[in-house]
Amino acid sequence: METREIFRNISPLDHRYSLSEREVFARLIPWLSEEAAVRACAKAESALAQAHLADRGRLTPALKAALSAAAEVDPSEVYQEEEKTKHNIRALVNVLKKKVPAEIAPLIHLGATSADILDTALAFRMQGAAREVGLPLLCKLELLLCDFAEREAETPQAGRTHGQHAVPITLGFAFAEYVSRLGKSILEIDRLSRQLKGKLAGAAGAYNATALISRDPETLERRYLTELGLEPSEHSTQLVEPEYLLRLLLEYNVAFGIIANLADDLRHLQRSEIGEVREDFSAEQVGSSTMPQKRNPWNSEHVKSLWKEFMPRVTTFFMDQISEHQRDLTNSASQRFIAEYVTGFCFAVQRMITVVEGLGADRERLLANLRGGDGIPGGIMAEPAYILLAETGVSDAHEVIRRITLSAEREGISFGDALNREPAVFDRIALKLADLGLVAESGEAREFFRRPENYCGLAARKAKSIAGKYRSIFSTLEKSFLEEGKNV
Amino acid sequence: METREIFRNISPLDHRYSLSEREVFARLIPWLSEEAAVRACAKAESALAQAHLADRGRLTPALKAALSAAAEVDPSEVYQEEEKTKHNIRALVNVLKKKVPAEIAPLIHLGATSADILDTALAFRMQGAAREVGLPLLCKLELLLCDFAEREAETPQAGRTHGQHAVPITLGFAFAEYVSRLGKSILEIDRLSRQLKGKLAGAAGAYNATALISRDPETLERRYLTELGLEPSEHSTQLVEPEYLLRLLLEYNVAFGIIANLADDLRHLQRSEIGEVREDFSAEQVGSSTMPQKRNPWNSEHVKSLWKEFMPRVTTFFMDQISEHQRDLTNSASQRFIAEYVTGFCFAVQRMITVVEGLGADRERLLANLRGGDGIPGGIMAEPAYILLAETGVSDAHEVIRRITLSAEREGISFGDALNREPAVFDRIALKLADLGLVAESGEAREFFRRPENYCGLAARKAKSIAGKYRSIFSTLEKSFLEEGKNV
Amino acid sequence: METREIFRNISPLDHRYSLSEREVFARLIPWLSEEAAVRACAKAESALAQAHLADRGRLTPALKAALSAAAEVDPSEVYQEEEKTKHNIRALVNVLKKKVPAEIAPLIHLGATSADILDTALAFRMQGAAREVGLPLLCKLELLLCDFAEREAETPQAGRTHGQHAVPITLGFAFAEYVSRLGKSILEIDRLSRQLKGKLAGAAGAYNATALISRDPETLERRYLTELGLEPSEHSTQLVEPEYLLRLLLEYNVAFGIIANLADDLRHLQRSEIGEVREDFSAEQVGSSTMPQKRNPWNSEHVKSLWKEFMPRVTTFFMDQISEHQRDLTNSASQRFIAEYVTGFCFAVQRMITVVEGLGADRERLLANLRGGDGIPGGIMAEPAYILLAETGVSDAHEVIRRITLSAEREGISFGDALNREPAVFDRIALKLADLGLVAESGEAREFFRRPENYCGLAARKAKSIAGKYRSIFSTLEKSFLEEGKNV
Amino acid sequence: METREIFRNISPLDHRYSLSEREVFARLIPWLSEEAAVRACAKAESALAQAHLADRGRLTPALKAALSAAAEVDPSEVYQEEEKTKHNIRALVNVLKKKVPAEIAPLIHLGATSADILDTALAFRMQGAAREVGLPLLCKLELLLCDFAEREAETPQAGRTHGQHAVPITLGFAFAEYVSRLGKSILEIDRLSRQLKGKLAGAAGAYNATALISRDPETLERRYLTELGLEPSEHSTQLVEPEYLLRLLLEYNVAFGIIANLADDLRHLQRSEIGEVREDFSAEQVGSSTMPQKRNPWNSEHVKSLWKEFMPRVTTFFMDQISEHQRDLTNSASQRFIAEYVTGFCFAVQRMITVVEGLGADRERLLANLRGGDGIPGGIMAEPAYILLAETGVSDAHEVIRRITLSAEREGISFGDALNREPAVFDRIALKLADLGLVAESGEAREFFRRPENYCGLAARKAKSIAGKYRSIFSTLEKSFLEEGKNV
Repeated sequence: METREIFRNISPLDHRYSLSEREVFARLIPWLSEEAAVRACAKAESALAQAHLADRGRLTPALKAALSAAAEVDPSEVYQEEEKTKHNIRALVNVLKKKVPAEIAPLIHLGATSADILDTALAFRMQGAAREVGLPLLCKLELLLCDFAEREAETPQAGRTHGQHAVPITLGFAFAEYVSRLGKSILEIDRLSRQLKGKLAGAAGAYNATALISRDPETLERRYLTELGLEPSEHSTQLVEPEYLLRLLLEYNVAFGIIANLADDLRHLQRSEIGEVREDFSAEQVGSSTMPQKRNPWNSEHVKSLWKEFMPRVTTFFMDQISEHQRDLTNSASQRFIAEYVTGFCFAVQRMITVVEGLGADRERLLANLRGGDGIPGGIMAEPAYILLAETGVSDAHEVIRRITLSAEREGISFGDALNREPAVFDRIALKLADLGLVAESGEAREFFRRPENYCGLAARKAKSIAGKYRSIFSTLEKSFLEEGKNV
Repeated sequence: METREIFRNISPLDHRYSLSEREVFARLIPWLSEEAAVRACAKAESALAQAHLADRGRLTPALKAALSAAAEVDPSEVYQEEEKTKHNIRALVNVLKKKVPAEIAPLIHLGATSADILDTALAFRMQGAAREVGLPLLCKLELLLCDFAEREAETPQAGRTHGQHAVPITLGFAFAEYVSRLGKSILEIDRLSRQLKGKLAGAAGAYNATALISRDPETLERRYLTELGLEPSEHSTQLVEPEYLLRLLLEYNVAFGIIANLADDLRHLQRSEIGEVREDFSAEQVGSSTMPQKRNPWNSEHVKSLWKEFMPRVTTFFMDQISEHQRDLTNSASQRFIAEYVTGFCFAVQRMITVVEGLGADRERLLANLRGGDGIPGGIMAEPAYILLAETGVSDAHEVIRRITLSAEREGISFGDALNREPAVFDRIALKLADLGLVAESGEAREFFRRPENYCGLAARKAKSIAGKYRSIFSTLEKSFLEEGKNV
Repeated sequence: METREIFRNISPLDHRYSLSEREVFARLIPWLSEEAAVRACAKAESALAQAHLADRGRLTPALKAALSAAAEVDPSEVYQEEEKTKHNIRALVNVLKKKVPAEIAPLIHLGATSADILDTALAFRMQGAAREVGLPLLCKLELLLCDFAEREAETPQAGRTHGQHAVPITLGFAFAEYVSRLGKSILEIDRLSRQLKGKLAGAAGAYNATALISRDPETLERRYLTELGLEPSEHSTQLVEPEYLLRLLLEYNVAFGIIANLADDLRHLQRSEIGEVREDFSAEQVGSSTMPQKRNPWNSEHVKSLWKEFMPRVTTFFMDQISEHQRDLTNSASQRFIAEYVTGFCFAVQRMITVVEGLGADRERLLANLRGGDGIPGGIMAEPAYILLAETGVSDAHEVIRRITLSAEREGISFGDALNREPAVFDRIALKLADLGLVAESGEAREFFRRPENYCGLAARKAKSIAGKYRSIFSTLEKSFLEEGKNV
Repeated sequence: METREIFRNISPLDHRYSLSEREVFARLIPWLSEEAAVRACAKAESALAQAHLADRGRLTPALKAALSAAAEVDPSEVYQEEEKTKHNIRALVNVLKKKVPAEIAPLIHLGATSADILDTALAFRMQGAAREVGLPLLCKLELLLCDFAEREAETPQAGRTHGQHAVPITLGFAFAEYVSRLGKSILEIDRLSRQLKGKLAGAAGAYNATALISRDPETLERRYLTELGLEPSEHSTQLVEPEYLLRLLLEYNVAFGIIANLADDLRHLQRSEIGEVREDFSAEQVGSSTMPQKRNPWNSEHVKSLWKEFMPRVTTFFMDQISEHQRDLTNSASQRFIAEYVTGFCFAVQRMITVVEGLGADRERLLANLRGGDGIPGGIMAEPAYILLAETGVSDAHEVIRRITLSAEREGISFGDALNREPAVFDRIALKLADLGLVAESGEAREFFRRPENYCGLAARKAKSIAGKYRSIFSTLEKSFLEEGKNV
């Protein structure tokens, strides 16, 4: 059993990040390591032998147990054998044949091509990694986002487009965006992870070998796969149709993009000039080796950076979709790196969990920014001025208000003050405001423009309803994952 | 109305390929051109004004008609106005206001932000392009593949893995792979195209403006979208949640990969040394300007090349998933190129239709290759020899047969002859063959190894069942598209 | 001559952006349109015939003129002929044969394979597009950046890392970054554009045909290429070695990334809360259809968006690097889209020229931000405090200052005030400052921490020296491009 | 010192491929592992302290030795400290301060920001990996290709375009393509690896801190970098200009594409129907677990698959080119994966070395294929027939010969026989052949068309001249790498 010092590994996943996300890494080993890959193949071989025995009416509890025991192979032993065969599955078969009762040795791998084992084992492992690690992490993140969205549902914030103040919203509403987008993506991942397929259709998918030795090769295939919790690919070449897995990987990437978008938002909200939220930063923590004042949003940056590393790998997934004729092997190395992709994704989810758990909102700063502090142009209330003016029947209302914002800007006064200086405009708006019951009397109109926090539309209500909906869905789902407990 | 000579365009889509796929191009213009984009926005503005009128109980057939008529704008007029406003939607609004009855001019664009119009119009156009052009083309291709798979269901072919003969299959079975993979992808495209969403949630998604002027802004939004056959995004920022469209584009790319895989298979099957199928090549057609003998698989190459051009664009789609805060505008130019992507995809589908329609199978060559002609190693029957030998209880059957293939290769004789030279092995196999009823008597075993076409497993049966299943689904679907007829 | 309304094109390059960048588009047509492609092939055919005539000692001025005249083909005519031949170069050859004096018709295309013409014409066009359009635009942008960097060389600005204030720099220094990075990239583009290659090596690169008909086929090749200003590929298959062009395209993408980086910086500097620079915004211009106050950084956003569209296309360039054996044709469609890539790049450069030409710096806001206005944590002078303290021999100086920044933050006071409250620390620093001659006497130390603009290191000097260096290089280069004047 | 069983790693680089390429992996650890990263930073810190001492005239051999010794840190120790600081460089600094003589402890990291160390160390490591591992491997591969090209320079082969026979070449000529393309790319890698840069310009690149404590901060920077064999970035922000490293990575990817192209060619030349070359396959080796006859081109497939995995990562490199303002940290995780990229590339080179070392050419099969065996259309000599006919003054020679190839194909006879049946055509060609001295007398013309191996143009000559040129260059270069011996 060969070991290596962790820091002598090449992949950041296997050194630095295996330590910073130690628990997630540990949970992924049984699905994504090479040990996991070899053992899943052994498990598949065992399932195949059981299917043969059942097909022949010879399956006994004792043989079943013997096969299960044999499946607990030591990967080193298989690798040693591979040095001779230069073929990994043939090596595994040789090892297993020695471990099982002699009478069933001939059934090991009988009728199978390597890909019947490898592709099936891959589906089994991908399903496990999704359902045992990825989805539970995602559920946790989603529920944390629900909490945050609800907690800050009524906290006013400047809505921003093009990096500029647009109209008021609430911080919880901004988070509800991610509740909604991520929620739907998780449900897709759940659905797609349940649809992964295996195969026992032989070297070119036509069941040539199994048709020789079994009366009903498709039933044999189902027996084999059921043991592993899978169904057969509708059509196989030497490989399972690639799209079952491809779609799952694409949906991971969709979820990854959503999380990266959140990370970007959080990075920018932590700018010196904005400062509306802050990642947890311990008292001892150092932000910069030379600038003692720094509290950098490094976790959000880390998540974005992981996205930059892993997102482009979909190109590989799409290239691996193509295999000549009944298969070429040009996906063999590249496909092994799917394990890296899933790991990188899970690490990003875990890091975002850390961020959201420790995330603080600075409500004072949020309000100050919204109201337009020092140097921040105060035109965030230009929209309601325009809408109200238009509602009084002024056809070029947008243009009228646009000119007022320009003069406010030119003279460095607030939009409200500039508006007030134009009574012909202001009075119409004030009346309309009173008309709509938005102020008690038109005299209060000035105040209306000083309190953008009152012009938040349905922000708070939507924040709550979305958070409520997804909390309900994901509380249930989270429980189901705990109960599911796939047996590695 | 500015025009340009076609050959003075820059994009191959707008010059060369608009001519080679003239009909598809014409069908795409109403959805994907700039004219289409402007008109869809006008249509959305008209729908919005109608929704306002309905909300206020003022919608009459006459006003409805007036709004519909106004929506038939000339894009040039809008562009001219944009030179002043430097803002495309404000330009459109100005143009429309002049076209509609004065009384409803103030309702144009009321409460909307540009993205309420643009994102909704984009969903409308993408839905149209999918359901009016992309899906009907895909259905046609799928049904042609069904035909081919059925027609050649029993035509023996060498199954190939790693570019080498593996075990026998049938040509129809090889095509059934694409029937099955493409079929499922088309059904996904159908599903996802129906789920595109629009919005009327205002500048930051919180319905600020519409909440000022309508008692029930969410109902107003539904009214607006229903007119365009759409539903609202669950949560909006300034934009519709990007994933509704993203998933459709990803599934296009999945289908694109499947078609490119088929193209690759066809390219290789047309190699000089293989020659099992041939693209239609007219008697006048020139294959090379210097090599008169050439009949190149140029259409299959073209499809593969389009895939190479368009597949990587998913990276842009994933980057556009990220927009800071309530939106930044860094998706605005890139998103316009989605029209190119969809066009490129449709062109590839159409070209593959052309290929499959004219595709010929050379059954003699197929059989000759399978049986192992001049120089082709004849080991394609090594698998059944190994399986049969193993079934007689020989534990190292694979190794025994492997050595026989090596000696056949070394001495340049056929595998069958080499096998025959080893009576200890051959006789066991011959008996087993008779035993299983695969030959009438063991004396015919030699013949068995000379006729690989009899060892095709379930290939023919699967080819037929898969073709049958998808023909039934897609005949129905094709009709439904014809009937649907979305009104541009 | 078929025409089409511009708005009925599909590609944004051929409708919207051909209008917004009208002049650049016009300059690109002679290199990147389909007309340009056909004519460059005709020009190459003419050069080939001339080379044959020279090889045979028969080249006369009259024949040379006749061939040049014939090269002015109408692309429509060629396309019409292609409907028969289904082969574009054979079509061109047929057209040309009819246009030239009968005696030299047999020399048209003699000994050439289509790719000898196509690949050579492509190199010719790519060289022209680079040297006639791309490089002059880049020079202009570079010189504008030099101007800006020099003009604002001494304008203090907050240096930012992680979006947070780090240490002071100057605005010109921040621009000098782009002067330096872009400058080097342009010089690479210049170098690589001069190294593009053509070929006349025949169908598989081995000069089979020309070796039949010429004593020295390599000299014939040189004659042909010299006429077009090119040199031969060191080795050819049917194609020129792909890396000559690939490296140019990659360097375009490098330059694109630099420009996109600048665009991102400008976007963020225009945030409401920062407001340090502003794109030109005309008095009539509308920023938003519903928010009259908006002056969005839309040109910078546009440039970033173009980068998102075009950057990923390098994946296609890398895939097209691979061609089976002496060539497969799977690069034929994809390669045509290089014209789009170059166009998109040139448009981005032009747009950035527009941005930089109209860019304004708000020096008051720059200084206010640097000094730490309302809500902006004022720790930007923590670094010198730490360095100075360390220089007095305090070993944990970083930690000491870090704690002071924390207390400043906690209590909402400025870093300078917090520092002042700790005389044990402050006095050491004040003495050191006086020691180093940075303040006249230690009593002025407080002022030092209130004037971060005095702690800008070498920023101003580097801004000037870099701007000076590149201005000198690019003034010369710009002239050379004007003089070069490649003849289309 | 934490260790892990190799098979419990996630990255295939750290388990399976670290074993299959054990020697290359071992050579990469000192440059690309985390241990290497930490130690290179320590080495940089040591160089910085030395530069400070030299700047102050205090550098003694004893202090130099003490600093070098301190640089041999144990990464575990640094990681332990990082658990407190949550900042990797601050942790390293703390560890080093304890290891060096107290008098120089304050000089550790003085004036530096973390990136001064990290970016410099990265350049140092990338230079080492290139010059100590990548380039020597590439030289070896290049020289092996030279050998092969020379050895098979005269071996006739069918040139293939579109997968179809085009005109004859030689096998050595086909390999000379890779000699030429790869040769130039290696020279670029050599050049670019020598141009990597470091920095000591502080937190925002303006030398703020070092300008406080040193009279000439740029000289201090040069001293620091010279110790590590590097030069300073022309302009720095917090980071070195990204393009120095980016261009090296892009050129790796160019070389990767060339090697993948070779792999693809080799895969297809090993098809059952072609069989012109063969990878080494040991007598015990198993090709398939179920098909005993298989000898798959798995090493070539492996190389192609690695390319599919790593090529798309350039997208990350391009995204990491963009960093907001003086830097954001969104490149921090992604940049760590460059180590994976370089490793993947080196593994591919090593695997291709293995392939080429063991590659066999089947000259009989090569000739048989060229001459057009069973089922292979024999039109490979149609080009000379057309050229010769054209040279006799027949203007539609191409068309005449094209029709003859069609009738040959239709009737299943060889092209030579079909040609012979048309005396009007054949006799002109025969005379021309004699005329050109290609046959002794026109009666031998039939034989000419039966011996395509005599129509190879300059193939043999070019194969030899290219192989000779690059052998000379790379023999010298290989030696220089052996002598260079960078000290880790």
